[in-house]
Amino acid sequence: MSKVIRIAVDAMGGDGSPKKIIDGIAHHNKNSKSIFYKIFGDKEKILSNLPSGLSKDVYEIFDTKNNVKGTDTPLEAAKRGKDTSMWLAIESVKNKEADAIISAGNTGALLVIAKLNLKMIENIDKPALSALWPNEKGMSVVLDLGANIECSDKNLIDFAVMGSSVFKSLYPNEIAKVALLNIGSEEMKGNEVIKETYQKLNRIKSSDYEFKGYIEGNNLMKGDVNVIVSDGFTGNIALKTAEGTANFITKELKKTFTNNIIGKLSGLINYFNFKKFKKRLDPRLYNGAIFIGLDSPVIKSHGATDYIGFSNSLSVCEKIVRGDLISKIKSNIA
Amino acid sequence: MSKVIRIAVDAMGGDGSPKKIIDGIAHHNKNSKSIFYKIFGDKEKILSNLPSGLSKDVYEIFDTKNNVKGTDTPLEAAKRGKDTSMWLAIESVKNKEADAIISAGNTGALLVIAKLNLKMIENIDKPALSALWPNEKGMSVVLDLGANIECSDKNLIDFAVMGSSVFKSLYPNEIAKVALLNIGSEEMKGNEVIKETYQKLNRIKSSDYEFKGYIEGNNLMKGDVNVIVSDGFTGNIALKTAEGTANFITKELKKTFTNNIIGKLSGLINYFNFKKFKKRLDPRLYNGAIFIGLDSPVIKSHGATDYIGFSNSLSVCEKIVRGDLISKIKSNIA
Repeated sequence: MSKVIRIAVDAMGGDGSPKKIIDGIAHHNKNSKSIFYKIFGDKEKILSNLPSGLSKDVYEIFDTKNNVKGTDTPLEAAKRGKDTSMWLAIESVKNKEADAIISAGNTGALLVIAKLNLKMIENIDKPALSALWPNEKGMSVVLDLGANIECSDKNLIDFAVMGSSVFKSLYPNEIAKVALLNIGSEEMKGNEVIKETYQKLNRIKSSDYEFKGYIEGNNLMKGDVNVIVSDGFTGNIALKTAEGTANFITKELKKTFTNNIIGKLSGLINYFNFKKFKKRLDPRLYNGAIFIGLDSPVIKSHGATDYIGFSNSLSVCEKIVRGDLISKIKSNIA
Repeated sequence: MSKVIRIAVDAMGGDGSPKKIIDGIAHHNKNSKSIFYKIFGDKEKILSNLPSGLSKDVYEIFDTKNNVKGTDTPLEAAKRGKDTSMWLAIESVKNKEADAIISAGNTGALLVIAKLNLKMIENIDKPALSALWPNEKGMSVVLDLGANIECSDKNLIDFAVMGSSVFKSLYPNEIAKVALLNIGSEEMKGNEVIKETYQKLNRIKSSDYEFKGYIEGNNLMKGDVNVIVSDGFTGNIALKTAEGTANFITKELKKTFTNNIIGKLSGLINYFNFKKFKKRLDPRLYNGAIFIGLDSPVIKSHGATDYIGFSNSLSVCEKIVRGDLISKIKSNIA
């Protein structure tokens, strides 16, 4: 049996918590056996929502009386947040009482409180937020998604190394192929930082990843590369635009299949195919952003996801701990 | 009968020219009667491709012996391009012999040659590339899409004014609602330039548009605003990412409807609904980027589009000339 992994769970963040969080844990526990969940939150509320199937052996509840709110600024949260479920969950990782921390709460607060409590990995200047994107051939790791608005070439190179480590910890048998997100036409190709990063990544000989040059937004989902690097501003714009486009198209598609009897009939006949299609693009599948660069894994679940989405982000926690992400980053950055 | 509009057409740019271009003109001419096409290109090739339906009264061919190539850098094109179809078409606008110029050729070359030949509109520092995007309620104008990698607050405010003018010249009965493309979480909201632009746009009282604040990528296609402003790097990333996402999803959808007999059958039954869906998202409908800030309209058709797409970008030319775009920009910027 594999080593037991201890996940510190902030049970009070995101919509519908703590119920969603606890249901997510119960769902995750059905398939993942060697996990111990350290649940931080309002004990009374958690107990009253506890699903019957969850064995007492796999969790412990740490009663916390305060929460970070979705409307708190990171500064507010950091100042008066020392007794919150989020802070205390992070602290348990700091104290080596847990192997990873996960929260579906306030992103800005999570980043700031994690930075305050956890040490940076040596030689990395800035932590980054990374996430998984679907592509035609599988999955890509994209970073930074908003932790750092402005980045130096050193930061972007660090992101390349860290993103490759995330990819390899999730897909140990595949090769990490790195590209820099940039714009198209030759003469205006990128700003100075991107050009400089390109030159340096081209010169570095690494056995941890292959550098594939620039990638444009229209090729992000082709799957020719699987680690996509950009500054946090650009990455966030790309992520959100992809999300908006996907929503727009599926809404238009839905209209097609509901605005007349033939559409409805065909939709009905094709029920299982549609289900497959929806499943392939289900954002819950890709839930779980990883905040990397700190000496412990910090995972952010989407606040609006449901218990299945939260369960999937618990799987991300599990995979990167088993895949030894932090050691990989340390040895690759050296 | 409305005033005859003269469009200078570079017939030699993009895939499949000049045939595609001439077919596009013939297709456009079926519905748009008061247009005179000044066609610049290889006369022999143009004549041998001329569709029989096109009346001799609606066009004139200007024989040009040289072309800008897709692989030319803008500098190369500008240096040795004075006898190219692109240059001469632009020159005819400069000499007031045409009301707008359109090309499906090399974007960088078109921008640079247009800037070399045409005057800037007074008080505008940088021209921008704008295009139409579909949204849930209709269409938006998005700019800049790549002409300017770095922009000042002054540039972004100019883009807001110019984008509103484009929108109003296309949709005279609607209100231009402007937003700044930015990223989400509070504490990291935007860089200094965006914040400064926000403050200034908030203070300006304009009767030409309503300023609606920031917009995130996931709301670009909701249609709550219809003029979206960003620097050229960010705008290009957003445009290309949306394109890539749309391609990815429609490919996945296609798989659903071809990978088994039920899918195929349902696709067949639903043929007309699918056609409607495809039509709604057909990129040819949105073909035609407008290069604005110069004292004549310069329109860029996608190089890879077909004659229908090219015909649609001729319609964009026609609309913005009839909508008096340049005068609108001049009076709104004053």
